[in-house]
Amino acid sequence: MATRQREISVSEFFLKNRHLLGFDTPAKSLVTAVKEAVDNALDACEEAGILPQIAVEVHDRYGKLRVIVEDNGPGIVESQIARIFGKLLYGSKFHKFSQSRGQQGMGISAAGMYGQLTVGKPLHIVSRIKGDKLASEIYVSVDTAKNQPDIHKKRWLKWDRSHGTRVEMEMEGHYQKGPHSIETYLKQTAIANPHLRINYRNPEGEELRFARSTNVLPPRPREIKPHPYGIELGRLIQMLNNTKSRTLLRFLIDEFSRVGKKTALEIIDCARKQSGRRLSERSYPRHIAHAQATALHKAIQHTRILAPQTHCIVPIGEKQLLEGLSKELPADFYTVTTRSAATYRGNPFQVEAAIAYGRPGDAAIEVDKSGRLRKAKAQGEGNGEHPMAQKGELVRLLRFANRVPLLYQQSSCAITKAVLQINWRPYGLHQSKGALPIAPMTILVHVASVWVPYTSESKEAIEPYPEILKEIKLGLQQCGRRLAHYLNRQLHLRQEFDRRAYIEKYLPHIGIALQEILALSNDESDAMVRALDRILHKSRGVRGVVA
Amino acid sequence: MATRQREISVSEFFLKNRHLLGFDTPAKSLVTAVKEAVDNALDACEEAGILPQIAVEVHDRYGKLRVIVEDNGPGIVESQIARIFGKLLYGSKFHKFSQSRGQQGMGISAAGMYGQLTVGKPLHIVSRIKGDKLASEIYVSVDTAKNQPDIHKKRWLKWDRSHGTRVEMEMEGHYQKGPHSIETYLKQTAIANPHLRINYRNPEGEELRFARSTNVLPPRPREIKPHPYGIELGRLIQMLNNTKSRTLLRFLIDEFSRVGKKTALEIIDCARKQSGRRLSERSYPRHIAHAQATALHKAIQHTRILAPQTHCIVPIGEKQLLEGLSKELPADFYTVTTRSAATYRGNPFQVEAAIAYGRPGDAAIEVDKSGRLRKAKAQGEGNGEHPMAQKGELVRLLRFANRVPLLYQQSSCAITKAVLQINWRPYGLHQSKGALPIAPMTILVHVASVWVPYTSESKEAIEPYPEILKEIKLGLQQCGRRLAHYLNRQLHLRQEFDRRAYIEKYLPHIGIALQEILALSNDESDAMVRALDRILHKSRGVRGVVA
Repeated sequence: MATRQREISVSEFFLKNRHLLGFDTPAKSLVTAVKEAVDNALDACEEAGILPQIAVEVHDRYGKLRVIVEDNGPGIVESQIARIFGKLLYGSKFHKFSQSRGQQGMGISAAGMYGQLTVGKPLHIVSRIKGDKLASEIYVSVDTAKNQPDIHKKRWLKWDRSHGTRVEMEMEGHYQKGPHSIETYLKQTAIANPHLRINYRNPEGEELRFARSTNVLPPRPREIKPHPYGIELGRLIQMLNNTKSRTLLRFLIDEFSRVGKKTALEIIDCARKQSGRRLSERSYPRHIAHAQATALHKAIQHTRILAPQTHCIVPIGEKQLLEGLSKELPADFYTVTTRSAATYRGNPFQVEAAIAYGRPGDAAIEVDKSGRLRKAKAQGEGNGEHPMAQKGELVRLLRFANRVPLLYQQSSCAITKAVLQINWRPYGLHQSKGALPIAPMTILVHVASVWVPYTSESKEAIEPYPEILKEIKLGLQQCGRRLAHYLNRQLHLRQEFDRRAYIEKYLPHIGIALQEILALSNDESDAMVRALDRILHKSRGVRGVVA
Repeated sequence: MATRQREISVSEFFLKNRHLLGFDTPAKSLVTAVKEAVDNALDACEEAGILPQIAVEVHDRYGKLRVIVEDNGPGIVESQIARIFGKLLYGSKFHKFSQSRGQQGMGISAAGMYGQLTVGKPLHIVSRIKGDKLASEIYVSVDTAKNQPDIHKKRWLKWDRSHGTRVEMEMEGHYQKGPHSIETYLKQTAIANPHLRINYRNPEGEELRFARSTNVLPPRPREIKPHPYGIELGRLIQMLNNTKSRTLLRFLIDEFSRVGKKTALEIIDCARKQSGRRLSERSYPRHIAHAQATALHKAIQHTRILAPQTHCIVPIGEKQLLEGLSKELPADFYTVTTRSAATYRGNPFQVEAAIAYGRPGDAAIEVDKSGRLRKAKAQGEGNGEHPMAQKGELVRLLRFANRVPLLYQQSSCAITKAVLQINWRPYGLHQSKGALPIAPMTILVHVASVWVPYTSESKEAIEPYPEILKEIKLGLQQCGRRLAHYLNRQLHLRQEFDRRAYIEKYLPHIGIALQEILALSNDESDAMVRALDRILHKSRGVRGVVA
């Protein structure tokens, strides 16, 4: 038996378990491949401070699909291309403590691996760095037995772009429309990234364009150090062993965020009392024994330390989210809230929630400038998949993590669980037990974090850690209260509208009666009716709006 | 940017994503650790042909838990211990094409990594191989930066066992009872493994014993080669490059199951026609070009090949499953079905389904030996967590994969989805739309496969591949039909019982009336009443049973 024990390469593991990376059915594999390439392109552009402009093309040749994703990013250094695209668990984002779309260094290589598996063709990369005369072109696949890049061909070539990267892959796949389509993914990406321009050409030759609604890049998330509260004992011991600091005091100040000299001394003092004075600020970190490390770990939990800094996360922002929503999802009412940052296991995260209610034209009542009520005008309604539920349907969810839309595994996601755990009836919606509320409404939730805990490597759902669940619920409840206010007001306005219609119907008759009784001229009668109308409108109008 | 690209070690990855391996909350981490150790012990015993006997102990010291799992398995060669327990993705089961509980080579090392992280203590292993004079003792942890074992201490020692392995780990954790407890896991393990003996001692000092119900080991699953139908093009190309066979003919015969000379020649002939005669049975596998490999791949799909052999999977068996169920889960009615084997993506799998209905004593009607009806006797009912739902509750599910109970992530599992997709009303159960049926009932499903596609590395739910979903549904429907038959009969018997009670109530009065009319003696009257009773019982009884 002993002789059969052997190492398993990461690539072999994920090749056999490719559903873990989102490559199970042909339809899903196609969407996942596009998603991985676009997410990488966006990360690269933003990191380099370039306004992203991305072109996506999909060609279908008898079930063999060719996917091309081209960006205007900074390009990739030639020596790194092979490993980035031909090796799983290789990248720049895993060890960084700041928000990005990718975090594992697996997605795009996995797409290549899937293409290799189903069609036997390597990835085809062209990349040019600004200022370089030529672009480098590489054909690369994953050598799964070793998890190393296998370069098929490599050369320099002329390219008409001044900088950027172009990824071309061939794979078996199935192109489809609907809620799990490339179109849906791109549309939702445009909502969460208003600074993005995408041109998309589907296998049927149709072109789809998503324009920018802002020319301002989101601020760059800054890297931070870990916060002491989230550090587990084993990690602390590891850090003590690996640090370059030569004293405990410096170690605490240098390796953690939010620890200054005062806090560090407090921690050390507290730990010293617990460990029988075997620790001091000048202790050499590597020589601190297990018992002292345990005391230090306890002391950290007992010391008051400022909450983590949050410039490592960049939420979409209430204004931008509202812009994105109203551009892609017309509705009668919007509300958006950005919660302040919180932490789980030491990782800062931030939740944004939004509600879009009512398909325009479904008989909402507006107050016009003169204070008069009127039915809102019906707006042109796009055909096909509408991201908002119709009356009598369950609400639709738009889930985002680090600005990336999540299309699959809705039922196991923290966002869905939060929506289900809220009682929506007090906010004026219908809801069956254990089900989503019923309304012509879309709920949007965005979770941004330096480390999003996905339920699997395919990054399709967020693990329901209690801290995250709580924040999402608080955000949704805030939106819910505003929605209740709007729905209440709509109810009042509607009642008022009915009453008004009643008055307007009988006012002429009152005019005629008064004319007869008071023997008024026609002009006098008309003037009086207008005056009555105005007075009634004013008095009730004000009440209607205030209610 | 280029300089920041770097490799991510598998251990680092899973340490940061430890929820993927089942180590998120303290309560779940404890159960996962026990589960990984016990599953390994069972695999080792069965592979060596030893009837497994396992002792599990959990000690609690102020939230720091010590878990000890000891088996009577074959022991581990000293040179392999460190890597098996101190390295992720290392093991003997991944590359094998046969059924086992473990398959990834991650579980137990992950448990060690979690202990290291939360308490800072390495795993403590003692293992002795039969015939060896001494046992080897090793303290080992995972060096996460390199994913290599880090040996803290190592020596030979005397051990009173003749062979076996003992794993001791310390970790932060939370001991609890209920549906997600060690008790539940062990109880369900005993149901699916009737040849297993477990002694368990919980932190409160209580002892729990699960005895064997059979002394016969299940047959050992045999290893097979992959079936040609499931092979993807990329994999075929890889196999052509790596084979030791020197001709295409031998390659097909040697590397695949169910391919003899005749089938191989048919495949080659078909491929030759498609590839313009550039292939022959004597082609050297490594020199076959991409286009020819594609033709070969197509030819395989067009050739009739026998279905995969199934001695690589060992279901529990209808008899054994019934024994296990009736030992651990008393019920009024059982039905068990083992489906024949099927395949998904070339991997053979087999589904077993069972239903246990009715808590004993909840007023079932029996037919006794003399053909009389009586209410079944109430049996002593165990307190605490009953694995069967009460009247008016949703049915409980017991999910198993390769004889291992699955306790978490019920909602994303193929088994749950299959139960939800079936309409249970025709079988006589209540069911709301989109919900589990309501009945005092337990549904058990076991999926056995050479490769179970779990939804995450923690192996808590099965990915709903269409082929697997279909087989589970067929198995459940088969059980459902038998249940409907039983429930129908129960209904008839109950109606009959009521009618009978009626007859018995009025029979004496009929006796008295007849006695008066026919002027019978008391003895004659009694005899006649008894005769009437017997005749009525017989005639209706037979009908009742047949109905």
